[in-house]
Amino acid sequence: MDTTPRGNRLHIAIFGRRNAGKSSLINALTNQDIAVVSNVPGTTTDPVYKAMEILPVGPVVIIDTAGIDDTGDLGQLRVQRSMEVLNKADMVLLVMDSGAGLTEFEQDITNRCRDKKLPVVVVINKIDATPITPEELAEYKEKLGSEPVAVSALTKAGIGELKIALVKAAPPSWDEQSIVGDLLNPGDLAVLVVPIDLAAPKGRLILPQVQTIRDILDHDAMAYVVKERELKECISTLNKKPKIVITDSQAFLKADADTPPDVLLTSFSILFARYKGDLETLVAGAKAIETLKPGDKVLIAEACTHHRMEDDIGTVKIPRWLRQIVGGELEFHWSNGHRFPQELSEYKLVVHCGSCMINRREMLSRIMQVQQAGVPIVNYGVCIAYVQGILRRALSPFPMIQGILDDEE
Amino acid sequence: MDTTPRGNRLHIAIFGRRNAGKSSLINALTNQDIAVVSNVPGTTTDPVYKAMEILPVGPVVIIDTAGIDDTGDLGQLRVQRSMEVLNKADMVLLVMDSGAGLTEFEQDITNRCRDKKLPVVVVINKIDATPITPEELAEYKEKLGSEPVAVSALTKAGIGELKIALVKAAPPSWDEQSIVGDLLNPGDLAVLVVPIDLAAPKGRLILPQVQTIRDILDHDAMAYVVKERELKECISTLNKKPKIVITDSQAFLKADADTPPDVLLTSFSILFARYKGDLETLVAGAKAIETLKPGDKVLIAEACTHHRMEDDIGTVKIPRWLRQIVGGELEFHWSNGHRFPQELSEYKLVVHCGSCMINRREMLSRIMQVQQAGVPIVNYGVCIAYVQGILRRALSPFPMIQGILDDEE
Repeated sequence: MDTTPRGNRLHIAIFGRRNAGKSSLINALTNQDIAVVSNVPGTTTDPVYKAMEILPVGPVVIIDTAGIDDTGDLGQLRVQRSMEVLNKADMVLLVMDSGAGLTEFEQDITNRCRDKKLPVVVVINKIDATPITPEELAEYKEKLGSEPVAVSALTKAGIGELKIALVKAAPPSWDEQSIVGDLLNPGDLAVLVVPIDLAAPKGRLILPQVQTIRDILDHDAMAYVVKERELKECISTLNKKPKIVITDSQAFLKADADTPPDVLLTSFSILFARYKGDLETLVAGAKAIETLKPGDKVLIAEACTHHRMEDDIGTVKIPRWLRQIVGGELEFHWSNGHRFPQELSEYKLVVHCGSCMINRREMLSRIMQVQQAGVPIVNYGVCIAYVQGILRRALSPFPMIQGILDDEE
Repeated sequence: MDTTPRGNRLHIAIFGRRNAGKSSLINALTNQDIAVVSNVPGTTTDPVYKAMEILPVGPVVIIDTAGIDDTGDLGQLRVQRSMEVLNKADMVLLVMDSGAGLTEFEQDITNRCRDKKLPVVVVINKIDATPITPEELAEYKEKLGSEPVAVSALTKAGIGELKIALVKAAPPSWDEQSIVGDLLNPGDLAVLVVPIDLAAPKGRLILPQVQTIRDILDHDAMAYVVKERELKECISTLNKKPKIVITDSQAFLKADADTPPDVLLTSFSILFARYKGDLETLVAGAKAIETLKPGDKVLIAEACTHHRMEDDIGTVKIPRWLRQIVGGELEFHWSNGHRFPQELSEYKLVVHCGSCMINRREMLSRIMQVQQAGVPIVNYGVCIAYVQGILRRALSPFPMIQGILDDEE
C-alpha cells in the first residue's frame, strides 16, 4: 500500500482539547505506536501529517493537531494553524474526554466544519475512566447534530464502531478507488479475457468488465479485449508485453496457460474484491477456510434481494466446495439484502457475495462488523479463487497480500 | 451486400392462389425483374429460393411457392412441398386477388402459420382492377386476425405500406444485425478509439461502444480499446495490421491521421446508422443536403422525450451547419418521441437522431415513411460526418455505399 499516491488518501484531521486522548486514539485505530502518547498536557505541538493504514478503511493521512484550547499568544498561533488544517482535511475526527464533557470548543469545531461542509465524527474517549450515560449521549447528539461514538482508546472498546462511523461519514469522493489503474503507467497495455457464454448479457458486457476498461482508459493505458480462445492469438499480435492480463475467473486456467509467466495475471473478481472491499482481509478470510471443522456455522450473505445474478453460487456451489474441504457437514445460514445479521460471533466464517449491488462503503462497514465479532470474512470471488487453487497466481499484482497465504497461523 | 451470409437473411415465403400476382409483387418489392411474370395460371411451379434486397428492409430470401390451390395428383404434391416451405420461412407473405376475394385457402394458410407461430402479412393485390371497400377490409381483418395491406403490384400503390408492414411483422430475431462483426474474420483485430471527455458517463463506456466490443468478441475477433491520444502508441505495439479502426466521430481527424492509409476506418456513428437503420438511404439523404435552398423546410426528429443525451446537436449545431451550407435561412421543425409526423411531403429533408432509444424496426419504419413521401432522410451521425467532410473516409468499409457520394444526380 506504500505506492498509494498521497493525494488519493483520505485526509482525516483529529481535533480535541488537550489530553482528550487524540494520540492514543490514533494508536488504537492503527495498532501502531507512531504518535507520542503522554499524559503531560500539550505534548503534541504542531500539526503532524502521517500517512498510515487504518484497516480495513484503507490508506489515510492523519493530521494530528495541537491541543487548540491553549490560551495565550502561543495558543492563539496554534489555534490559527489548526484551523488552516481544516482546509486540507477530507473529514474531521473530534475527540472529547468523557470526564470533561461538552464545551464551547467542540461546538466551535462542529460549527466550523458545518460551514466548510466537512464531515465530522465526534468521539467520546476515556469511557473506561468515566462511563457515559444514555442521557449524556442524547444531549451531545442534539447539541452537535450527529451521534457521537463512545470509545476507550485504552481498552479499545468502541474502536470497531468508530471505524464504521468513519467509513459512513467519509466524503463521497473517498469511494473513488481505482480498479486497476493504480497498477498501470501511461501507455501500458492490459489484456482483458472475457468469455462469452450463456451467462453473458445479450449484446453487452457485464458491468465490471466495462468499468475495468474505463478505468484503464482513465489512466492513459490501453485495453485489449479478447475471448479466452483468442488470448494466445492476441499475445502473438503484440511486439511488447502486456503489463497485466485480467481474466474472468472461469477462464483462469486457460488464461494462466496462455499468459507469459513474467506477465502479471489476475481476475476481475480479485480486482473487484479490492475495489469493493478490502482484499487483504478477504484473503485472510480465505485462508481461514483451512481452519473450519465439521459442525461449524458459516454465514453466506448476499447483498441483493432481487433475482440473483450469481445463480446458485451461494446456495449450492460454495457450500459443496466448503464441505469437501472440511470433509464433513457444516451448518450454513443465509442472509439476503440489507438485513445483515447483527449477531455474528456464532459463525466461524462469513462468505459474502461480490457486492455488485452495494457500494464500497457498505461492504467495508460489513467487513468491519464481521471483524469486530472476531470472525473471518471472505467474498465469493476470493473464495472461489481459493478453492480452485488459483488465488496465489491471481494475487501476483499484490505480492504483499500474496504473502498472507504463506503466513503461519 | 452480396457478402451477407444467406443464413442471416430474413426468409419470406410468398403464398397465394394461382395468379394472385405473387411474382409481379416480388418485382414491385425489389424493383427487379427476377420472377417470371405471366398471366397463364400456374406458371410458377417449384418453390424458388432467391436472395435479394428489399430496400430498406435489407437482404432477404424470397421463397416463391407454386400456386398451391392446384387440384389433382400433381397439385397435391405441390401442396405438400409448399407446406414444407413453411418450416424454412421466418415469415409469410400471403397474396390474394382483390377480385377473387377471401377463400378457404387463405384461412388455411393463416391457420397453419398461427400453429407454427409464423408472422403473416396478408396482401390484397390488384386493387387497380378491383378496388377494395372498407367493409371488405374490415371483414378480412376479422376473419384473418390481422389487417391486410391493399396494393397494386402494377401501379405500385401501397407497396411502401407493405414494406412497413413487413418490417413490423418480422420476427424478433430479424433485428439481430451485426454492428461490425460481418466485416471481420475470426482472429481479426479491430481498434476502438474512445475519447474520455466530460460527456462520457462516469466510470462507464457509452452503450454503442460496449455493444461494438461485444459484437467483435461474438465474431471471434479481438478489440483493442484506446483513447485517441494512445492510438499511435497502440498501432506501434502491434506486429500485424488491424482490420479496422472504429473511432468516436469527435476524434475522427486525429484517428484518420494516426491510422495507416490501408486500414479501414469508420466511426461508431456510421456503424450504428447501418445497425439501426439503412446506411445507404441515410448516405443518399446526406447527399441531398447539397440540393437544399434557402426557405426550405427541414424536419429534425428525435426519438426520445426525456433529457436529451445528444445535448444541443439537434436544436443548435445541425441547424447552424445546414444554414452555413445553404447560405441562408431554413425553416426548421422539430418532433420528439413517438409522435413522428404523418404529413412529411412538405419537407425537403428529414434529419433523424441516432435512434438509440428506438429499435431498428421502428427506425426502418420511419425511414420508409419518409421515403414514401419522396423526402430524403439522414441521421445525426451521417449528417455530422458529411458536414465535417469525413463521410467518404468513414465509409471506407462500405465501398458500394461510398459510391453514392460520387453519383451524379
